[in-house]
Amino acid sequence: MDRDAILLTPGPLTTTLRTKLAMLRDWGSWDADFNAMTAELRAQLLAIVHGEEMHVVVPLQGSGTFSVEAAVATVVPRDGHVLVLDNGAYCKRLGKLATLMGRRTTIHQRAEDEAVSADELEGLLRADSSITHVGFIHCETGTGVLNPLQAVSDVCARHGKGLIVDAMSSFAALEIDARKLQFDALIAASGKCLEGVPGMGFVFVRKSVLARCEGNSHSLAMDLFDQHAYMEKTGQWRFTPPTHVVAALAEAVRQFNEEGGQPARLARYTDNCGTLVRGMADLGFEPFLKPALQAPIIVTFHAPSHPAYQFKAFYEAAKARGFLLYPGKLTQVETFRVGCIGAIGRNEMQQAVNAIGDVLSDMGIRH
Amino acid sequence: MDRDAILLTPGPLTTTLRTKLAMLRDWGSWDADFNAMTAELRAQLLAIVHGEEMHVVVPLQGSGTFSVEAAVATVVPRDGHVLVLDNGAYCKRLGKLATLMGRRTTIHQRAEDEAVSADELEGLLRADSSITHVGFIHCETGTGVLNPLQAVSDVCARHGKGLIVDAMSSFAALEIDARKLQFDALIAASGKCLEGVPGMGFVFVRKSVLARCEGNSHSLAMDLFDQHAYMEKTGQWRFTPPTHVVAALAEAVRQFNEEGGQPARLARYTDNCGTLVRGMADLGFEPFLKPALQAPIIVTFHAPSHPAYQFKAFYEAAKARGFLLYPGKLTQVETFRVGCIGAIGRNEMQQAVNAIGDVLSDMGIRH
Repeated sequence: MDRDAILLTPGPLTTTLRTKLAMLRDWGSWDADFNAMTAELRAQLLAIVHGEEMHVVVPLQGSGTFSVEAAVATVVPRDGHVLVLDNGAYCKRLGKLATLMGRRTTIHQRAEDEAVSADELEGLLRADSSITHVGFIHCETGTGVLNPLQAVSDVCARHGKGLIVDAMSSFAALEIDARKLQFDALIAASGKCLEGVPGMGFVFVRKSVLARCEGNSHSLAMDLFDQHAYMEKTGQWRFTPPTHVVAALAEAVRQFNEEGGQPARLARYTDNCGTLVRGMADLGFEPFLKPALQAPIIVTFHAPSHPAYQFKAFYEAAKARGFLLYPGKLTQVETFRVGCIGAIGRNEMQQAVNAIGDVLSDMGIRH
Repeated sequence: MDRDAILLTPGPLTTTLRTKLAMLRDWGSWDADFNAMTAELRAQLLAIVHGEEMHVVVPLQGSGTFSVEAAVATVVPRDGHVLVLDNGAYCKRLGKLATLMGRRTTIHQRAEDEAVSADELEGLLRADSSITHVGFIHCETGTGVLNPLQAVSDVCARHGKGLIVDAMSSFAALEIDARKLQFDALIAASGKCLEGVPGMGFVFVRKSVLARCEGNSHSLAMDLFDQHAYMEKTGQWRFTPPTHVVAALAEAVRQFNEEGGQPARLARYTDNCGTLVRGMADLGFEPFLKPALQAPIIVTFHAPSHPAYQFKAFYEAAKARGFLLYPGKLTQVETFRVGCIGAIGRNEMQQAVNAIGDVLSDMGIRH
């Protein structure tokens, strides 16, 4: 039957029909009605992190990576020095884009099955006073590991270093309270835990920091200082906004608030993750991470060691049953990933586990 | 009544319901079905400019300006020198982004009510042999003026200079034949004359040029060499694609082909433009441009010189009647703009003219 598959991925995710239906309208990007929608969306986003007092939020066209690059380009001065705490693929991407744009960048690597360490950061900052900014991934989607945001923020605050947080896959699911944290920029996107459709990111920037960021960016499109100044002045996006994506996100945020905001979303995803991990354990699957490090966002599983296993065939068989899994992103061990996020609940997770069980039987790998 | 207004703007545009309905599905961005949609879309886009032999097309997340910046960053080497033929706001934007990213940039200014001149270009290239690339806007949306693409391409080809064409508001409406032209890069976007929704751009790049572009870009997200290489290797977008925007564009291109492709679209827009200009003339409105320079995309009109005229009130009154107009972008004379593009035809244009007539009467400015 022609029925949408359930997306068990790190995004794009399964969204509600209500969110998608919000796209059945064309908006004039210069018009007051659209400006009001943008303003309301920005206010709602800011409220999620309690950032009203100290921060602004700057939306940006493109995927989440565009917003990460824009955040680095805007808040790190050209003579700045970024230390990236690296325990996975998205950390490496942050390091790469900072290097490419010409910012001095130091990558500090940890094993992919460990969280980054605030203690190590303490030592690194002591050892090299030229470091001006720390780049940090809240939930490293490459593995699903949860990194210690509060502890890293505390160290940065104590040393007077700017903190840039990629909260792409954690925002709206895990607690992020701008009143307790100190960050220069925190980045997320429409198509993740807010359960909108992909096509825009947004960056929370500390007001006192943004005020000093004019002229930092070598990119016109990615200059968040400019984007913010223009939006404050006119109410409009500087360049053509993805109007339908914005409308879908506004509708998704309404449903997020109706559900009970971040605590409710975390509770649902935690339940999704528990259902998945317990069910997969019964099928003999072992998570790559220790439970204490596992964020309830995306779970990396070791691939079955059975000779009949092949990811491609496994993926296709699960897809034929209505579920899209995700490949692993590790080079050393063979893994695959299953997302716990999107407009899905316990039913969908249990159905997915059951389908994976059926797939194993069919492939002759019940292990 | 709660009915969508008709967008008489340079984009986002009024799209068909069929195009919007294509967004009621969630796609896995890693999945073969989505990859097939991307591949088919790219093939269709390439066919529109007959670029199959000499060019590739690289889609990019974000607004059209992101794709313009990416094109310059990718095809102009870091020690290149860009000459921008400037007769309007979008030319200036191209010059600004090239300057910001550190490329040597020379702006050659013309009056906004004139087309750029291939003869002048000839002289400029003779006078300064350090120029490596020419930046050119096909239809300058600031005024609606049509610039001479073929003649400029011929001059660039004769001098062995790279040509970068911003065809944002002309692509799919005006003839662009890659077999007759010589360009390094030609840029357009989803939410313009293809009548998709906004959220992505795409750049046609000459294969032999792209092959030499590795490492030119200082931006990770905007590196079209990388984006292309990854897409060729995996079938996937390098970073999260705006899946719903892609699906809408694929559906919009199907309707474009069903309508009869570029000649049919040009015929409809030409008819729209004629209906508009004749109707507005009857109301006493004078176009800013001479008829020979007017592209059938967007028309700039002189504002009424009547003391009761105010753009804001005029705009609101037209909006109340169901039509969204567009402000002027000229500093010297007071103007407003009316778009002729999008999923609209003679009926909508005549209704718009009638509504504007009613607005003038109500405002007491029947001039």
